[in-house]
Parts: sequence; C-alpha cells; structure tokens
Amino acid sequence: MKAISIGLLGLGTVGSGVVQIIKNHQDKLMHQVGCPVTIKKILVQNLIKTRPVEIEAGLLTNNADDILLDEEIDVVIEVMGGIDATKDYLITALRQGKHVVTANKDLMALHGSELLTVASEYGCDLFYEASVAGGIPILRSLVDGLASDRVTQMMGIVNGTTNYILTKMSNEGRSYDEVLKEAQALGFAETDPTSDVEGLDAARKMTILATLGFSMHIDLEDVKVKGISGVTEDDIRYGKQLGYTMKLIGYAHREGEKVEVSVAPTFLSDNHPLASVQNEYNAVYVYGEAVGETMFYGPGAGSLPTATSIVSDLVGVVKNLRLGVNGKSAVTPQYPKQLKDDNEKYSKYFLRIHVRDEVGVFADITTIFANYGVSFEKILQLPIKKHETSEIVLVTHKASLTSYDGILQELNDLQAVKEIKSAYRVVRKTI
Amino acid sequence: MKAISIGLLGLGTVGSGVVQIIKNHQDKLMHQVGCPVTIKKILVQNLIKTRPVEIEAGLLTNNADDILLDEEIDVVIEVMGGIDATKDYLITALRQGKHVVTANKDLMALHGSELLTVASEYGCDLFYEASVAGGIPILRSLVDGLASDRVTQMMGIVNGTTNYILTKMSNEGRSYDEVLKEAQALGFAETDPTSDVEGLDAARKMTILATLGFSMHIDLEDVKVKGISGVTEDDIRYGKQLGYTMKLIGYAHREGEKVEVSVAPTFLSDNHPLASVQNEYNAVYVYGEAVGETMFYGPGAGSLPTATSIVSDLVGVVKNLRLGVNGKSAVTPQYPKQLKDDNEKYSKYFLRIHVRDEVGVFADITTIFANYGVSFEKILQLPIKKHETSEIVLVTHKASLTSYDGILQELNDLQAVKEIKSAYRVVRKTI
Repeated sequence: MKAISIGLLGLGTVGSGVVQIIKNHQDKLMHQVGCPVTIKKILVQNLIKTRPVEIEAGLLTNNADDILLDEEIDVVIEVMGGIDATKDYLITALRQGKHVVTANKDLMALHGSELLTVASEYGCDLFYEASVAGGIPILRSLVDGLASDRVTQMMGIVNGTTNYILTKMSNEGRSYDEVLKEAQALGFAETDPTSDVEGLDAARKMTILATLGFSMHIDLEDVKVKGISGVTEDDIRYGKQLGYTMKLIGYAHREGEKVEVSVAPTFLSDNHPLASVQNEYNAVYVYGEAVGETMFYGPGAGSLPTATSIVSDLVGVVKNLRLGVNGKSAVTPQYPKQLKDDNEKYSKYFLRIHVRDEVGVFADITTIFANYGVSFEKILQLPIKKHETSEIVLVTHKASLTSYDGILQELNDLQAVKEIKSAYRVVRKTI
Repeated sequence: MKAISIGLLGLGTVGSGVVQIIKNHQDKLMHQVGCPVTIKKILVQNLIKTRPVEIEAGLLTNNADDILLDEEIDVVIEVMGGIDATKDYLITALRQGKHVVTANKDLMALHGSELLTVASEYGCDLFYEASVAGGIPILRSLVDGLASDRVTQMMGIVNGTTNYILTKMSNEGRSYDEVLKEAQALGFAETDPTSDVEGLDAARKMTILATLGFSMHIDLEDVKVKGISGVTEDDIRYGKQLGYTMKLIGYAHREGEKVEVSVAPTFLSDNHPLASVQNEYNAVYVYGEAVGETMFYGPGAGSLPTATSIVSDLVGVVKNLRLGVNGKSAVTPQYPKQLKDDNEKYSKYFLRIHVRDEVGVFADITTIFANYGVSFEKILQLPIKKHETSEIVLVTHKASLTSYDGILQELNDLQAVKEIKSAYRVVRKTI
C-alpha cells in the first residue's frame, strides 16, 4: 500500500508532538496500518521561526491551499485552534475527500454536528478524541466500550488548570489569587485565564461528552457554567472538615428522557473516585445503568499526551482506509434534545452563611428550608466571630434547583442574614 | 438488514446479564447497528432449572451443535467458562464462519493466540474485552486509544476478590483468615478461593494485557506469581506507617526489547492512582512513553458489568458485519518474546526482619545490603519485643532481583536473623 500523506494545520506545542510521535513510533504505526505514514505539508504562520522539533524547511507553507487542495494528501490533522476560519478549512478538506483529525474542542463544541454531517456526506472520517481530556481515550470508550449500555451520569474533571489551582489551594491552604499567579508563572495558566477559571473550557468539553454519552445533541448554551474564581480557602477548609474535596466538576445527568449539563465548583465526598485526581490531571467518571461506576484518568493536556490521541485517531482513519469503510463510524444522536426544568434538577448543597448573632436566627433560617421541604444532612455551627457575626455551615439533603433558588432568595431577604458567603453543589459517592 | 442471530453458550450470572442487556437496551442496539439483535439459542446443562431471567423454554438446548452448526446463527457468545471443551466449541464455531465474543480469561490466556489465528483464517471476529477487568474497556483502550503510543508499563488491580480482602484488612485492621471467611459468606470469594488469592486469576489477565500492550506473545508460565495468603495485618500496619497501601498488583514492564510480568502483593505509595482503588473494584494503570500516566477504573466482575463488555463487543462485531470487514481488526504481535533476566528486573523492596537483640546485628545486616550495592530509602527500627527479639523494617532503593535473592539468602544464613517475616515489592508514583 502506498504511504499515507498527512497535512498538518498548525505547528504549536501539540503539532510538534504529532510530528515527534509520527517520527518516533513509525515502526509501530507501520505494523498497525501496514504502510508508512508521512507528513507532507505543515501550515504555519511564520516560515522562519525556530521550532522545538526539527522540520525540513520544504515541509512548511503559509498557504492553507497547499494542504487543502493537494490531492495527494489523505488526512488533515488540525491543531491550529480557532473557530471560524478553521471551520472553513476543515469543510474544504472534507469536501476534497480528506479525512480530518482535530483536537479543537471549541470548534467541535460549537460546530461539531455540522462538521460531522459534512464528513458523512463526503464519506470522510472526522475524529476528535483529543478535544476532550487530552490523553484519555474517553470518547472511544463512550462510543465503543460502553456501546451496549445506557449512560445516566458523567462527571468530569476536564480542565487541568483549574484542577491544578484547586489542588494547590486544598493541599497548601493558599488563596486563589496567590495560586493563580504561581500557575501563570509556571505556564499552567494563561495570561488571560478567563476561559479556564470561569469554566468555559470545561463547558465546551462537557458539551462534546454529553452529546456522545447521551446520544442527544447538546449545545454549549445548554450548559450552566460557574467558575472557580469565587472559591476561597475558607470554603475549602470547611469542606475538608466535612469530608469533602473541592473540584471544578462538569456534571451531566440523565433521568428518563431529560438531561442537565452544568459546570460548577463542587464538593465531592473524599471517597469519590474523582476526589483523588490531583494537579493538572483530568478524569471522567461515567455511570452506566448496567456497568455501574467507571472512571478514566490521565493527562488532560500537554504536547505528547494530546498528540497521542491525535495519532491514535489517525491510526483509526488509516485502518478504515485500508478496509474502505471511512465515513461510516459516526453514529448520529438517537434522541431529540430534552432538557430538565429547574424543578427536575436535584442536588445536595453546601451553604456558608454569616448571620447576626441574635436569638432566634437559627430558627428563622431552618424554617425557610423546612418551608421548601428541604432537610439537612450536616450542620456546623461555628464559634461567634468578631462584629457580632456567627457563621453557619449547612449541608442539605437533596433539593430541587427551584427550591434552592427560592431558599437563597429568602435567606438574602432575611434581615438577620448578613451574607451568603458561599454555596456549592455536593456530590457523594453513591448516586 | 435482517436480524442478527446470537447463540449463547452458558446461562450463568454473566449469561443472564447478556440476555437482560440485549432485552433492556434493544433500542440503543438497534440505533447503533441498524437491525434487531436476537438470541436464537442458549446452551445450558439443565433445561428445567429456574433462571434469574425469564427465558422462553424453546430457546434452551443442551446440545451445543444446535448452536455451533446452525447456519442462521451469526455470532456465538461464550460465557460457559472451562478450557478444553470450550476451546473445541469455539474453534468449531469459527470454522463455521461464526464470530465469537468470549469472557473467558482462562481460555484466552492459555489458547488466545491459537484461537485468534483460526478466527483470522476464517475471516471471523474474536473479541474478548470482558476477559480482563469485566466492565472496563481496557483492551480497546490499549489497542485503539493508545494505538500510536509505546506502552512501557502496565499495573493492574485485576482481581476483585483479593482487592476486597486487602481493602477490608487495611481499613479495619483485621486478619486475612477472618476477612476471607467473611468474603466467602458474602459471596465475594469462592468456597475454594485458591485461584483468586494465590494470584492465578490475576496472572491470566496480565498475560492477556501484556500480550496486547507490549504486542508480544506472553505465555502464562512467563508470569511470576505470588498470592496474598501470606499477607498479615502487621505488614499492612507497617506499610501504613511508611505511607504505603498494600494491593495485589499485576506488574508488566518493558525496557528496550525485554519485558517482565509478575503478580505479587505490593506496597504502593499512598499517592499512586491505584492506591485508592477500593473493595471489589478493578483498575489498570498504563504508562505510555508519550501519553504518560493513564488509569482505567471500574467494576472487575459482576453480571451486568461483564455483560456490558460482551454486548459492546457484539456491537463491534455487528458493525463490522454491516461494513463487511470482520476478521480484520486483530493485530498480530509485532515483537518476538524477549523476557528480562533476573538481573534486569529492578524494584524497591520492603523487608521486615526479626533479629536477635544483640550488639552488632544491625551492622551485620546493613553490610549484606552494602555488599550487593543496595542502599536504603527508609529504616524503621522498632522497640525491642519479647524473647529478646528486635524487629527491623527496611525499604531499599532499587535493587535487581538477583541482588534481592542473594540478600535474602545471606540474611537467612545470618545467625542473628531469626526470621524474615515478610518481603514485598514497593512501587512509588513516579516511575
């Protein structure tokens, strides 16, 4: 069989990793696919920049058409990022009959469904394993490994930056601002960290996971998002006392025909498999009706882990090429989108409230919860602090989001409540 | 497309799970494969026994030929267990052009290579995901998800019974015998627990994992096996003091062209991802050159988890049927078998030694280690106990197995050493 020709769009960290793996693992690739795999052209912005990997100058181009319109190129690997222009490139590539492998979560979260449709029309594969949780083969596991099961819950630590920050805050008792600065200095967080710390990056990945896991097209705007910038070291300390670990959790839950997807800082019980996922690692916890609890753990980003996913997808494309079955593995969503209403979303909640240190306050507060039919799992009443303020920490039993919102409103209206310092979802091991 | 007909060999716990999943998830299966999937015949020993699932009497047979020779049956699912007779059945089925899905680790560990060859000759799929770590799609992940990487290490908690026993011993400070009895009463351990507790079951699974992960045919007799029946609550307690958790670990390591595979009770540093895998859960930790650390966690056994793997394999077979590409996905081992010599196998070790409480004993002992060039990471010298005996706990830096065996021999010969109470491999997070 003739060599497989690759066109690479982008040559940043991940692109360099792809070049490196194709070079270093050529014998394994040859053995698996039965022919050499070579990179024919690489699209870059700057032709003369020094690169972390050795590249023949002749391979580089700054004209995308040199790749998209080259009939000899079989597979386009997209690692340039970006949304609109990149989407156009990939649609052109697919229309030219080229198979596509992408690591672009932003693009797949926003336009995945359209791109997959074009791929299918033109008999092309479009694989995107690397778009969620870099080195973890979670999309394959959802589609193939759990093919026969009905997934009812997915929880993901799918953003390495925030997990690094929360781990440091938790292990070292330091503040969010301090740890963020350190993470930026070490290159674990971007100069503008908004997309990571405000949960948007995680939301994009949850969109992709929920769409596949629930076989239902979920849009990014369906995902309720809250980031970690408001998490304090006090919250984390109180959580610890109660046996909880703070994580930024992408939560996707199905009940009957309806689903909910959200991203929010969450207290996990310490014995939850996700609670021990530390530093920049990612993990996706999947609950299937038949299989029960499973978890997939690994590096969420990084040059070589992400490139491993990409080249593994490439192996999939080439195997399909040999068998002549490209463009036939994507399964379209089975169900129409149905989102839960707020009164169908249940959770336990952690609340930390500052109240005036007066007689009857505690009764006033608990009455509000009782009126909504919400009871408590744990109550931590703390010693009186300065300025005649008491601190109350509560963990509720399951409450609907409607009740919870109502309770928060009424607490805020209560004259004796000075401030609701924090409020988080709580998830225990047993669902 | 016409319905796909299944023949089921065996209707025990897992077989009942298969029936249940095919029934309960028929709409998902239909959506994925585009046609109904029906069970046409089930081989059982006893036609009139009461079953945990409702089965039409007409489906049952006690004559294997009713399945193996029925031209209408497309796929044979083997969940009857056993080795020789079962192997003959599966070879007959493959020669009849039937695809096979099996959960039989014993059979695959011993005769997998032969069966896969027959499957390939007859253009049939032979899938066996359920044979290792029941509900965890680990084999697919090794073959597809990490297709482009070079796996250098796999460590598995692949036996639920022993993990349950060690978890209870560790969390509750109880003895092996006591916990084993309880596990037997609860149905977590067999009446004759030998295959589980002596590590043979784990060794079979490691044979399958190592063959796939290293792309090298590993035989069961290549796996050095030690079980947990000698593990004491004292060992576990000392380990805890040093920050270690005791697990029965299947260890497969590759260095250059050579590999080693073993199963033994092992102390993991508490921060190792495998250390937090509790009770009957399984997990496989995989280290790839490019991807780094990944871990796959889930139920290792049980009716529905195992059946999920089996039916997911079935979905794979049926997808291949639709595409006309059966029998083409198996990749034969890339490398000839090369096993490490003992002087190429390196590990840290934990040793607990009872010595006479005499002057100079400690120097005598440490001299033996020094003569082999082995130094210490930790030394715990314990208060003198009764009968003029001292207890010394040592953790070495890395030593070859040859040195280790030599050291053990010389320690045994030392007049001052009363008894080597225990000796275990130690694995830390950073490899």
